Amino acid sequence: MDVDIPEPGPKDVLIKVKAAAICGTDIHIMEWTPFAQARLKPPVIFGHECSGEVVKMGSQVASLAVGDLVAVETHIPDEACFMCRTGLQHICQNMAIIGVHTDGVFAEYAKIPAVCCWKLPKDTNPDLGAILEPWGVAVNGILKGEINNRSVAVFGCGPIGLMGLGSINAWGASQIFAVEPSETRLKMVPRFAPDAVLLNPAKEDAVKAIMDATGGLGVDVSIDISGNPKGIQGALAVVRRAGRVSLVGLPSEPVTLDLTANIIYKEARVFGSTGRMMWGTWYEMQNLMESGKFDPMPVITDRMPLADFAKGIEMAAGGKAGKIILYP
Amino acid sequence: MDVDIPEPGPKDVLIKVKAAAICGTDIHIMEWTPFAQARLKPPVIFGHECSGEVVKMGSQVASLAVGDLVAVETHIPDEACFMCRTGLQHICQNMAIIGVHTDGVFAEYAKIPAVCCWKLPKDTNPDLGAILEPWGVAVNGILKGEINNRSVAVFGCGPIGLMGLGSINAWGASQIFAVEPSETRLKMVPRFAPDAVLLNPAKEDAVKAIMDATGGLGVDVSIDISGNPKGIQGALAVVRRAGRVSLVGLPSEPVTLDLTANIIYKEARVFGSTGRMMWGTWYEMQNLMESGKFDPMPVITDRMPLADFAKGIEMAAGGKAGKIILYP
Amino acid sequence: MDVDIPEPGPKDVLIKVKAAAICGTDIHIMEWTPFAQARLKPPVIFGHECSGEVVKMGSQVASLAVGDLVAVETHIPDEACFMCRTGLQHICQNMAIIGVHTDGVFAEYAKIPAVCCWKLPKDTNPDLGAILEPWGVAVNGILKGEINNRSVAVFGCGPIGLMGLGSINAWGASQIFAVEPSETRLKMVPRFAPDAVLLNPAKEDAVKAIMDATGGLGVDVSIDISGNPKGIQGALAVVRRAGRVSLVGLPSEPVTLDLTANIIYKEARVFGSTGRMMWGTWYEMQNLMESGKFDPMPVITDRMPLADFAKGIEMAAGGKAGKIILYP
Amino acid sequence: MDVDIPEPGPKDVLIKVKAAAICGTDIHIMEWTPFAQARLKPPVIFGHECSGEVVKMGSQVASLAVGDLVAVETHIPDEACFMCRTGLQHICQNMAIIGVHTDGVFAEYAKIPAVCCWKLPKDTNPDLGAILEPWGVAVNGILKGEINNRSVAVFGCGPIGLMGLGSINAWGASQIFAVEPSETRLKMVPRFAPDAVLLNPAKEDAVKAIMDATGGLGVDVSIDISGNPKGIQGALAVVRRAGRVSLVGLPSEPVTLDLTANIIYKEARVFGSTGRMMWGTWYEMQNLMESGKFDPMPVITDRMPLADFAKGIEMAAGGKAGKIILYP
Repeated sequence: MDVDIPEPGPKDVLIKVKAAAICGTDIHIMEWTPFAQARLKPPVIFGHECSGEVVKMGSQVASLAVGDLVAVETHIPDEACFMCRTGLQHICQNMAIIGVHTDGVFAEYAKIPAVCCWKLPKDTNPDLGAILEPWGVAVNGILKGEINNRSVAVFGCGPIGLMGLGSINAWGASQIFAVEPSETRLKMVPRFAPDAVLLNPAKEDAVKAIMDATGGLGVDVSIDISGNPKGIQGALAVVRRAGRVSLVGLPSEPVTLDLTANIIYKEARVFGSTGRMMWGTWYEMQNLMESGKFDPMPVITDRMPLADFAKGIEMAAGGKAGKIILYP
Repeated sequence: MDVDIPEPGPKDVLIKVKAAAICGTDIHIMEWTPFAQARLKPPVIFGHECSGEVVKMGSQVASLAVGDLVAVETHIPDEACFMCRTGLQHICQNMAIIGVHTDGVFAEYAKIPAVCCWKLPKDTNPDLGAILEPWGVAVNGILKGEINNRSVAVFGCGPIGLMGLGSINAWGASQIFAVEPSETRLKMVPRFAPDAVLLNPAKEDAVKAIMDATGGLGVDVSIDISGNPKGIQGALAVVRRAGRVSLVGLPSEPVTLDLTANIIYKEARVFGSTGRMMWGTWYEMQNLMESGKFDPMPVITDRMPLADFAKGIEMAAGGKAGKIILYP
Repeated sequence: MDVDIPEPGPKDVLIKVKAAAICGTDIHIMEWTPFAQARLKPPVIFGHECSGEVVKMGSQVASLAVGDLVAVETHIPDEACFMCRTGLQHICQNMAIIGVHTDGVFAEYAKIPAVCCWKLPKDTNPDLGAILEPWGVAVNGILKGEINNRSVAVFGCGPIGLMGLGSINAWGASQIFAVEPSETRLKMVPRFAPDAVLLNPAKEDAVKAIMDATGGLGVDVSIDISGNPKGIQGALAVVRRAGRVSLVGLPSEPVTLDLTANIIYKEARVFGSTGRMMWGTWYEMQNLMESGKFDPMPVITDRMPLADFAKGIEMAAGGKAGKIILYP
Repeated sequence: MDVDIPEPGPKDVLIKVKAAAICGTDIHIMEWTPFAQARLKPPVIFGHECSGEVVKMGSQVASLAVGDLVAVETHIPDEACFMCRTGLQHICQNMAIIGVHTDGVFAEYAKIPAVCCWKLPKDTNPDLGAILEPWGVAVNGILKGEINNRSVAVFGCGPIGLMGLGSINAWGASQIFAVEPSETRLKMVPRFAPDAVLLNPAKEDAVKAIMDATGGLGVDVSIDISGNPKGIQGALAVVRRAGRVSLVGLPSEPVTLDLTANIIYKEARVFGSTGRMMWGTWYEMQNLMESGKFDPMPVITDRMPLADFAKGIEMAAGGKAGKIILYP
């Protein structure tokens, strides 16, 4: 569809989208699920994972310049609430979301608040810029505590899980378990975490396998990126006494948990995780890339023109693809 | 019933019970609930909250002497597992429980492992010694993080909750909310936390009241001591973004939680809490008593001979009493 | 001296100064010490602790309105560096300081960056607004960890130390020691921390007294606000094994420390502290005031017209005054 | 010299020493430095790093069996003080030290408290068992916080530093700097941390080199293992704002530090570190070895009969050897 090129407000920039990536949220929107219905007021251009080149500046923007290559942070903080004023913009009390509350990035041009722009080195591959946002979802969840020398179980090995596994591997985990019911995805794990134990809960009792492999102790850290009730219950079941659980995936319904056995008696510590710290998480990703210890690019399995986005979303929904990049 | 005075093993002491207190677990045992059936193999003397005088020493016990007054820690750690060897004896992987797995303290004499004895100053009131164990349950849950200058909501104001409220008040919380459906108990709160806002969820929407009183932000810290699903759901609902929740009460069934709204999007931190740190929690109680800022004794509402324990348990089960002390 | 009323830049506001307070830095400047010589390029209007009313807005300022009463944060962060972008603006890598690098507040009007304004409730006493900045220095140092139920020693009981002692007392410390060589100041301590043990190191061995009073263990937390080598050495000497030390006072020369005995063998944890977290520290102060548990106003001992500032600085330098307020 | 085989007390075991290693403390003792004079009352058998086989059991020892291979923890905690009873035995208030306060392990047989024995898998190389104690010194210092994705500078690359560098490398540091004036030792670094930047402070300005390599920011973590004043000053100089410093090496004299610039204005966090957590540090080492990510054995450069220990100590004192193993 043809729409006018948007005019940036005083605190925005206009970017020319270089590469955009498809996210689970986009599938919700495309399928118009209750999740999407509760959040969007169409017509809205959706899509929020992207990189682009700054082509026009709002009058008050000093932190960027025309020609800069940027990645986009999806969350627009209000910069005024208690959270924003204590270093936690990513859980702003009045958050707006690009591609949900404002027009998004599945377009040739997009208007982005300057506060949501992460400047990239000039020679960065735009595809890489487009996957920092989802990678950051994993990184934020992983870094609720230390990873070095820890045994870690990851439930859910979609694109976010895979990039998470690569980060965990690079950060010196002592033992890694990857739990995922899709064989296609499970087969991608070794590329990201070569020594990970692969577990398909559709075929075996993953919880039992992890308990056995840890001598009945359980893992130091478990992370649910599936949002699936079974994944979450599994993450709680396998964590050891005093261990740490990060909840990253978003269950669409309330989840029933055995709190007594799995949290209270074990004194487990459970951390909700959403989005990316602004900008702690982004610095962590930059750091890791510069160290040369992990490259998330192999998570990208498909590339296509933006015009094919319906096909891309169908592929993503099928659970067989890694990350899909769209080019406007 | 008459039983022989037990003979202490080499690492035990024999104590003459001075004062014992009735706990919710004892009610479970008396009512022979599934919880009790799953744990006890009768005949067992139950009761585990007590103070007593050491009257006989096991051959290898060097840390105590005949004549010492002690309070009893209910949990018997194995002192050999990973938890025990890293400072977390209270969540030992092979825990035994006095009055559940071994004969307890509703008796004239009791055999107690020396590792479970907390030595009291000579002139301590034995009644006080008998309530340290349940008070410690609250203290362990409260101290999963700082309390100073924090707004705190407590769900469940039975004896443990009341002593917890007194501790929270003494430790400089900025604002306290007490949520409890029993009016009898709610009326006891001001004695422990004079400025607490009292909320009866049977009569009003406690969650809404707390959100309103915190300007829609929610509290920094919420603690469930009720074990009731509604209490737990309430504790999660009222905690602010990045806030802390301690789960202390033991739900008897799995609990259904809105993880997305109440933990993940808020990045709440949820801490299971059980028993008392050995001996960090006990030092905290000793410290607080010595500071003169809180005295838990008013939680004791009734005192009676051990022979009347059936009556005591009935009173405790009725939810109208505070702590009940039994004298052998 | 008559100077033009400054014109606010696009991100500044112009405030009419309501009350200003004298700080140790101002004494340095007045006495033109090496500290001042290294930092200031005269002519500069100095003074940085104040409250004022917004009378003119920069064109890009959206967070304030004419008529707002504000307190001033002294540190101007660049909002661009790693620190600023990870929630630590108060230790910005390119910090500028009001009244040092820019014209300050010992004036009728002052130009203040909007990012340094903390909005106060309309009915706030301007004198209170003027002492939040120095109070925050103490609060930031104190809150490097929990205070509840901790034994705490404070070295240095000038205005910052006194307000710190009041906060520590309100936040549930179990035991407080106040160490200060000036009898005038030491006598002010009970007004802020009624149960504090008062120690004059000019008259007795304060380290020995604290060790004796803690049974040879030492305190959980010690805080140096004196900047004096003896104060710092004392703070390190009295902290217990695994205890916490905050260094707040600024020594003007390098300090010689027995690291082996006082930090390494004890596994002490030493935290540097400077300025105030933006805005965590300010919220803590607001919280504490709203709780009604502490009022810092009694730290103000003298009030005079701005024209008398030379006299005020002389009084402050003499160490006999509390906080001195100047009115333009 | 011939001495009688010692008789284990009820809580001791007798071990047949399989391999012992030479430590800096032994050099102090051999050279009878003030450090040694202040601590030892001769005649004492010294040496404290070793592995051995249990050949005789004290009557109360239940945790071990004849035939067990053990490594020895040097520190004998009293198991009674506040530290010991709160999980911090390694900083016991009444610590005794094997080979200093009691007879040590440079002997055919040694009497070791059971509480100081770490059981090894049967097939462990005894040489490895003998170097766990010094390796643990590094690990305890390193793990005062997370290492994953952190830039780390290590000052002092003797045997402890080298094993520390290997651990840091395995645990996913993003960037490593190794500072050491001995070329012999510096050349050993790549075997432990292949990507480390090697800096010889005798030849270049190591602080400047690190600041330049981190874009003027400094490192996230710095660790002094040298105990040398210049090493400590360097560690403080290169740490970034809000960064972490571990002090592991023991300076023999008080050290003069620029606290204002290097700790206070930067809000650096400084952690003393001594010995090894009992038994957290030992589990970390076991974990790391089992993960296959690091093998400390290459730190051993020389092996000789116990009879040659004078020669071994001379070599160690010369700073050219790695770890030297003695066989009784």
